[in-house]
Amino acid sequence: MQKGNTKISMAVIRRLPKYRRYLSELLEKNIHRISSRELSKIIGFTASQIRQDLNNFGGFGQQGYGYNVAALYEEIGKILGLDTIYKTIIIGAGNLGQAIANYTNFGKSGFVPMAMFDINPKLIGLKIRDIEIMDSDEMEQYIKDQDIDIGIICTNKEQAQDVAQRLVKSNIKGIWNFAPTDLDVPENIMLENVHLSESLYTLSFLLKHRDE
Amino acid sequence: MQKGNTKISMAVIRRLPKYRRYLSELLEKNIHRISSRELSKIIGFTASQIRQDLNNFGGFGQQGYGYNVAALYEEIGKILGLDTIYKTIIIGAGNLGQAIANYTNFGKSGFVPMAMFDINPKLIGLKIRDIEIMDSDEMEQYIKDQDIDIGIICTNKEQAQDVAQRLVKSNIKGIWNFAPTDLDVPENIMLENVHLSESLYTLSFLLKHRDE
Repeated sequence: MQKGNTKISMAVIRRLPKYRRYLSELLEKNIHRISSRELSKIIGFTASQIRQDLNNFGGFGQQGYGYNVAALYEEIGKILGLDTIYKTIIIGAGNLGQAIANYTNFGKSGFVPMAMFDINPKLIGLKIRDIEIMDSDEMEQYIKDQDIDIGIICTNKEQAQDVAQRLVKSNIKGIWNFAPTDLDVPENIMLENVHLSESLYTLSFLLKHRDE
Repeated sequence: MQKGNTKISMAVIRRLPKYRRYLSELLEKNIHRISSRELSKIIGFTASQIRQDLNNFGGFGQQGYGYNVAALYEEIGKILGLDTIYKTIIIGAGNLGQAIANYTNFGKSGFVPMAMFDINPKLIGLKIRDIEIMDSDEMEQYIKDQDIDIGIICTNKEQAQDVAQRLVKSNIKGIWNFAPTDLDVPENIMLENVHLSESLYTLSFLLKHRDE
């Protein structure tokens, strides 16, 4: 499904945030230049893998010099779209929704939580930091009025598909789904799932087989 | 690093929970037999990928019959170690820790939350469902007394490595880490990370490049 160099594999894309995180730690330590070999020791990918990954984007390294940490950090941020402001809403204001609303780092990276929505009258009207919990019935209008980009689904499994359909009808661009189910959305809607149980079951596998 | 068939790649392991989830949905719909081709349509992996994945575990399919859904569901559960009871503790009783404590499905899958730990005096002594929030100072003793298997780290980035070291010293077997940092733990400690920002940045990438 790849056309020349125009499409980058999901595997590479998923490694980019990791590169960016390590580069940010290097910057905090005032390290401004690093070779792919040194980077390899820190990140745990091979140096050749690193060079190959970063070559997808034109290649930032110079032979004999290595990578300019700040430039690479900034460039990966741009590639990831972190130079863009995304307006987000959180649907489902339970503990998980509140945890995400409270996590200020997402806002700092450009994902601005504008409002939360819930069906529980006890929650409607409350604020998490300065983010209001609104009545779920007002969601569609709010998305249109505020031109919301991303819906973060923190409802239970049963409600998630219905919420997704309402988001799609309201012309949302992307969905970040925490409900433990696979959502059916049109291809032009970008969907990213966080399936926590799959991660936990992977840990379970590792524990069961760790002495083999 | 693979020795014959004794080691299974992480990519396959990470697909197993997905197979199990889809099989459980088939069972709910009273479907008891399925071909790799039909399964392929639902899951979105190719039929050949599915046959190859499941062959890693001896192969449950019969030519011309397909897979026995219930048997396959149960077998994958066993492979994943979901026939085992794991005692877990949650470190960090903020919103995220509470969200996990409230998520009863993990308990049903054998991951029993025994206690939560926090340093905040306002939280210590409270209960989430029937799970008590204890003083973080009591953690090491509790792990030893109760023979805890898994520590779930829901602290901030700054505290996470210190918590991990204390868990390791207390002979924990596995760590499920939600703090946005990579932990340094010995090889015999099974570590699974949930890096939420990496998932969000992947969504950001997809949004930025969706019209290309």
